[in-house]
Amino acid sequence: MSLPHADDPAELAAAIAAGDRAAIAHVLNLLDDRRDEARKKTTALLAHLQQDQDNPTGQLIGITGPPGAGKSTLSAALIRVWRARGLRVAVLAVDPSSPISGGALLGDRLRMQTSTEDDGVFVRSLSSRGQFGGLSAEVWPMSVVMLAGFDIVLIETVGVGQREVDIARLCDTTCYVAQPGSGDSVQFIKAGVLEVPHILVVNKADMGNLATRTLSELEAALKRTHPDGHWQVPVLATSAVDGTGIETLADALEEHYQLLRGPQLALRRKRYQAYWIHKRLLEEFGSFGIDQLGGEESLLAQLQAQDMNLFKQYDALRLRLYNRIQDTLE
Amino acid sequence: MSLPHADDPAELAAAIAAGDRAAIAHVLNLLDDRRDEARKKTTALLAHLQQDQDNPTGQLIGITGPPGAGKSTLSAALIRVWRARGLRVAVLAVDPSSPISGGALLGDRLRMQTSTEDDGVFVRSLSSRGQFGGLSAEVWPMSVVMLAGFDIVLIETVGVGQREVDIARLCDTTCYVAQPGSGDSVQFIKAGVLEVPHILVVNKADMGNLATRTLSELEAALKRTHPDGHWQVPVLATSAVDGTGIETLADALEEHYQLLRGPQLALRRKRYQAYWIHKRLLEEFGSFGIDQLGGEESLLAQLQAQDMNLFKQYDALRLRLYNRIQDTLE
Repeated sequence: MSLPHADDPAELAAAIAAGDRAAIAHVLNLLDDRRDEARKKTTALLAHLQQDQDNPTGQLIGITGPPGAGKSTLSAALIRVWRARGLRVAVLAVDPSSPISGGALLGDRLRMQTSTEDDGVFVRSLSSRGQFGGLSAEVWPMSVVMLAGFDIVLIETVGVGQREVDIARLCDTTCYVAQPGSGDSVQFIKAGVLEVPHILVVNKADMGNLATRTLSELEAALKRTHPDGHWQVPVLATSAVDGTGIETLADALEEHYQLLRGPQLALRRKRYQAYWIHKRLLEEFGSFGIDQLGGEESLLAQLQAQDMNLFKQYDALRLRLYNRIQDTLE
Repeated sequence: MSLPHADDPAELAAAIAAGDRAAIAHVLNLLDDRRDEARKKTTALLAHLQQDQDNPTGQLIGITGPPGAGKSTLSAALIRVWRARGLRVAVLAVDPSSPISGGALLGDRLRMQTSTEDDGVFVRSLSSRGQFGGLSAEVWPMSVVMLAGFDIVLIETVGVGQREVDIARLCDTTCYVAQPGSGDSVQFIKAGVLEVPHILVVNKADMGNLATRTLSELEAALKRTHPDGHWQVPVLATSAVDGTGIETLADALEEHYQLLRGPQLALRRKRYQAYWIHKRLLEEFGSFGIDQLGGEESLLAQLQAQDMNLFKQYDALRLRLYNRIQDTLE
């Protein structure tokens, strides 16, 4: 271990909060490691990072949309605006796990477009995996770590459907990027396949008429009040090529964050954590296991009521299920 | 019960094999009913329908693609061709379950475009539900019933991603319908988000240049040999409006079926059944439960080796897991 603080969770937590890149990279790798040793370290670390759950920090933004909509380029343009505003940004690029695409498509694309010299930008790729076909199991713990060290954490994913639903349940603010002229996004919204995002973006506004038409179609298709309430969903035109609308988008994201800040944000973060734990337990023990814990609704309520650290909460429930089940096994 | 044969599984099976619409509708409703009484009836019925597993009948076709690609209109045009060829057709239209779209969008669309007088066409809607966000749990048992009474069973779904993967694992022949000009389908294929279908269709060929361009983009993006082997994936242009390519598409579907017929088809059907049972058990008992049964690979191999009826196989495994687990519970 080359990091002097790697074995002391308090020191490691402090290094992360100070934005130490090596420390963050180290912990993200630990979170990817499912062995007991690694899990012990990350449990202790998360306990430190989550000490003050009533005052959550950072903004967790989910950016999603079909492949080809220009999410990476748009993210890179947003990052430039945020950096100019003095904000530190971490990106978690979740790629579909696929034998064809293989590696870190989104992350690599983004890295190519951002300065590697800038200490205030951190990009991590993650391939989605697991039964749920959606987000990787590591997304939430990794977000907790990144939120401790950065002002903005951007989760970028390809896709519509389950993956996009999961993102909406783990982010403060969701932003859907539509492709001009495809009509798909409009259809997705009409069909209810797409959960209503907080901000809807038609990218490639430089495509002219096509973008304008898609913009007005989306405006017509969309119920403008977000299901969360108290938020009117803006439909924005952007172009990463000529810079159109990027500042406006950054403003809208900031405006949504200001709306959430305070007790509401603390409550939401607890909800994400409960959702993540529920999903992991469901993956491992099925609906049978969830029933053993009193059913989904009761489990979620119980998790949100407790002020406990992520892995401690998760491990406690896992142990409860194991104990119930394991004795009978030959 | 208004059906005279409804309580005798042998009579009911015979009525289904004779294409008795009332009998089929009755059984599909039973399959939707999860109470013990209904389950007993359907288990007995499926045992009759699955007596000769080495000689499977019918062709199970999955048709999928993004919303707006014109799947329903294309299906209706295909049905006309099949009817003219003397084939009886059943359709299972799987809609995304959504608070917004609500009901039976795909099924209703299709019904509007087919003759309600024709005894050789049967349309059933099903809303997708369950943890997996993909196909409804009833798709496979319902397919078994429909295959007994019809020459062709068409499963139509909206979507790309998990739902489309599931369809590929439960159908003899998969057909993906792309929308001209969106570029999305090309991106999906390149990104490996889309499993390679057996037949790729660019619909709305009447859109002219846009369709031609999409067609050549897809041809370029696609590895033409299907992962199944022995099958070159055709990329076809169709138009339900002017009838272009519909006969050719029907021919390609028939050609693929001829390739599969015989021992290979029997093997594949067993594989679908094993996949379905695995998925249901995973949903209920999680990865922990699957591990208790020896893990995914071993379970699938074991299921495929047995010559057993669907619900009997499923219920036996479910019981085994329950027995292992239940004793410890307070």
